[in-house]
Amino acid sequence: MPRYKAIIAYDGTNFNGFQAQPNGRTVQEEIEKTLKKMNNGQTITIFGSGRTDAGVHASGQVIHFDYPEKRDLEKMRFALDTQTPEDIAVKSVEVVPDTFHARYHAIGKTYEFRVDIGKPRSPFRRFYASYYPYPLDLGKIESALKDLLGTHDFTSFCASGSSVDDKIRTIHEASMRVNETGDELIFTFKGDGFLYKMIRILVGTLLKIGNNRLEADAIPEIIAGKDRNLAGPTAHPEGLYLVEVSYD
Amino acid sequence: MPRYKAIIAYDGTNFNGFQAQPNGRTVQEEIEKTLKKMNNGQTITIFGSGRTDAGVHASGQVIHFDYPEKRDLEKMRFALDTQTPEDIAVKSVEVVPDTFHARYHAIGKTYEFRVDIGKPRSPFRRFYASYYPYPLDLGKIESALKDLLGTHDFTSFCASGSSVDDKIRTIHEASMRVNETGDELIFTFKGDGFLYKMIRILVGTLLKIGNNRLEADAIPEIIAGKDRNLAGPTAHPEGLYLVEVSYD
Repeated sequence: MPRYKAIIAYDGTNFNGFQAQPNGRTVQEEIEKTLKKMNNGQTITIFGSGRTDAGVHASGQVIHFDYPEKRDLEKMRFALDTQTPEDIAVKSVEVVPDTFHARYHAIGKTYEFRVDIGKPRSPFRRFYASYYPYPLDLGKIESALKDLLGTHDFTSFCASGSSVDDKIRTIHEASMRVNETGDELIFTFKGDGFLYKMIRILVGTLLKIGNNRLEADAIPEIIAGKDRNLAGPTAHPEGLYLVEVSYD
Repeated sequence: MPRYKAIIAYDGTNFNGFQAQPNGRTVQEEIEKTLKKMNNGQTITIFGSGRTDAGVHASGQVIHFDYPEKRDLEKMRFALDTQTPEDIAVKSVEVVPDTFHARYHAIGKTYEFRVDIGKPRSPFRRFYASYYPYPLDLGKIESALKDLLGTHDFTSFCASGSSVDDKIRTIHEASMRVNETGDELIFTFKGDGFLYKMIRILVGTLLKIGNNRLEADAIPEIIAGKDRNLAGPTAHPEGLYLVEVSYD
């Protein structure tokens, strides 16, 4: 049976996250429902590169699934894209070796986190950026971002309730830019993987630094302390986007 | 009683247009509800620069209203902004002479119209841009835009059902740009005023020209014909934004 890899985007606003679960609408269930229809009522299971939480968006989530037929790839993409609900888009579909696994073979992930810093909050971004109306020293944030680079034990930036033992991760890029109109911050984080709610806690901590409630050089100490209480609050999910998943 | 002018923004998705009416939620009613609360239960009527249809957005709609007290302007703005629902934002408030009228004294309006031309349609823009997945010759559109400039009888670009007699309007700017990522067209129209659904019919016609189903030089003939049937279809409301209203 051919294995397909697809790159998908979704507006997380009306999903209770990516992964199928007893309560609420999920991305996985909507795609599996569509695949089942395309496959004459036979269930097809999809595997994502990882879950995303309720309200979190994706512009480049990767999934894989096995489908009994070899189909024209653009037709397959178009069918999946148009038959899934409007808050899911299917950007590309390709055939991969049947050893490919969207989750286990992912070697890197890129996330963006958007913060609306305008006054007032833009009604157009209320589901697409977190809101932060307080003063920010962007120079302090820039300086703190550098301390995140490299390989560290990120226990302090992992939400309690995570079942992962190894909390060592490598961050290759941690950067920030301001949008054209000067009313939005866009953080980019690239790494080999991220812990549960790690990006949101990183952003909450960076904003606390920018707002002068933590020192610009606070990050190394927070990392060294291996204690979630040392870091800042968890930023809201609506600012977070899974942008890219990379494979060998 | 002091008269206030306010610049407001709203996400039109969940409104049945700007103006109060028997059916559905409107921007006017939500703001009047808030002002009534602020004014100890006494009704205050607001006047907009003009109506916008269901699904149409505004980043710079102007309203005026009389409020019995002289209040600190930033406090007034903040109260209105935070007490109205999240899909309405109040950007600025100022006191104006009590002869000022948001509608009758408007001398110009600027609209933008956004068209998602990406494949697939972005799930993040499904309420914020119209979708056009067909081939477009942007050079033809650029050329046609020039023919809209100046003073013309725009009967051909006015939806039937309009009660306006004088259909002569002046367009000062008609331009188009492509966004950074190349998957969105942004049209800008600036003029002394626009007829009912005029911008949406202009865009529908320009897209038809770009798609080679009308000649690049079709606009002067369509204008001369004074017949709605000569122009293209009415583009969807979700791409339209009232961006600015100007006064003397």
